[in-house]
Amino acid sequence: MKKNIKIVLEYDGSRYDGWQKQGNTDNTIQGKIEGILKKWSGEEIEIHGSGRTDAGVHARGQVANFHIHTKICQTADEAKQYLNRYLPDDIRVLVAEEMPERFHSRLNAVTKTYSYTVETAARKSVFDRKYVYGLGKTLDVNTMRKAAAELIGEHDFKSFCSNKKMKKSTVRRLDSIEIIEDGSKVTFVYTGNGFLYNMVRILTGTLLEVGLGMRKPGEMKMILNAMNREAAGITAPPEGLFLVNVEYEK
Amino acid sequence: MKKNIKIVLEYDGSRYDGWQKQGNTDNTIQGKIEGILKKWSGEEIEIHGSGRTDAGVHARGQVANFHIHTKICQTADEAKQYLNRYLPDDIRVLVAEEMPERFHSRLNAVTKTYSYTVETAARKSVFDRKYVYGLGKTLDVNTMRKAAAELIGEHDFKSFCSNKKMKKSTVRRLDSIEIIEDGSKVTFVYTGNGFLYNMVRILTGTLLEVGLGMRKPGEMKMILNAMNREAAGITAPPEGLFLVNVEYEK
Repeated sequence: MKKNIKIVLEYDGSRYDGWQKQGNTDNTIQGKIEGILKKWSGEEIEIHGSGRTDAGVHARGQVANFHIHTKICQTADEAKQYLNRYLPDDIRVLVAEEMPERFHSRLNAVTKTYSYTVETAARKSVFDRKYVYGLGKTLDVNTMRKAAAELIGEHDFKSFCSNKKMKKSTVRRLDSIEIIEDGSKVTFVYTGNGFLYNMVRILTGTLLEVGLGMRKPGEMKMILNAMNREAAGITAPPEGLFLVNVEYEK
Repeated sequence: MKKNIKIVLEYDGSRYDGWQKQGNTDNTIQGKIEGILKKWSGEEIEIHGSGRTDAGVHARGQVANFHIHTKICQTADEAKQYLNRYLPDDIRVLVAEEMPERFHSRLNAVTKTYSYTVETAARKSVFDRKYVYGLGKTLDVNTMRKAAAELIGEHDFKSFCSNKKMKKSTVRRLDSIEIIEDGSKVTFVYTGNGFLYNMVRILTGTLLEVGLGMRKPGEMKMILNAMNREAAGITAPPEGLFLVNVEYEK
């Protein structure tokens, strides 16, 4: 008999090649966790993440699940203890719980929240160097809020997707974009039912171009309608991005 | 002719063996800076720090000064630019300014401020792993404030000094200890006219023992009077400690 264990993870993505396992020279979050589960159980156990994070992207609440024999793991708490004992200190299991057999961290996710933080001051603190994008320019936050409002709702976000060969639907629902000022830092918080490859970073890059006066808020509809990556702004760099939270149906 | 340049530095001390240069296998902040000044000027230039920081201790506003030929460096801003170009990304010059010839960053310092942050929750965030001490226990902040009040003023702090062979005076003036709660974190902010070797970490260790109910606030006077390191509490670990600011006479 197997248990289906859901884990909530926090990680500093700075020194990893992202979430998703990569063949032989593996230096990924998924690879680290699967390596420990293999050592524990003696068999290959695949973990399913709620979504990939790119190299250098961080998580405060990534969710994953895996199936493991009850002979090896009797309680979810055992899994948390074992993983935290062997994980490097930049990856932590915050919560582990047993789920119904059919639970899948990606397929059952209802909403996800990401944050992206930018430093507008000329200089970024050394303590922020891996966690904040050093833009170094002043942003017009009110204008960015107007542009953000144009992006809310269900749209085809093809223009905000780096994967040009994407065959599946690129329609997603963006529930909110909060833009928070804290001293010289600006944080964008995105919540929606799903995000395409690089979507948060391209949304941020585009909003930054609005905040810098390079684009008008009214252009957002045109960018959505273009369904072409070239129409949107830059892909903001990875270090400012955090996967904050993944919600499931109760 | 030489200029006397004062620099204000920010650094993440995590991967260094502290401020003070050490012979051959040097991996110190002072060593990094002097190495760059030597490359620039072609001669050995000694920098004088306002004080040493231990391995793993950070700075938001360390101050240092050095003398350099006007042939090499015409303006303080040139020194800032040159250093920041070659310094690793965990050490930054925030400010550089030309000072009168007699200015000395240690001898002329009037007050210094340090902060020390503790996580009282069971688990420390991965993002805090190098910057916060993971105590993992609840603290009685009001009782710690009572103990802190007993330590304010001019005292012989010999009991709070790790250097047992200290021959110079161990009398210092502690102007304030602020204890700030922020969620599950507690930060101690110390300002005084000077601090002995490990003094901030021993003050913090002792106050933590009060906050945990292992000592009474009234014991502080006794500890000061003992003039013996054994009388005080533990030396709190380095990662929670930041040199925040050094003040000079205007």
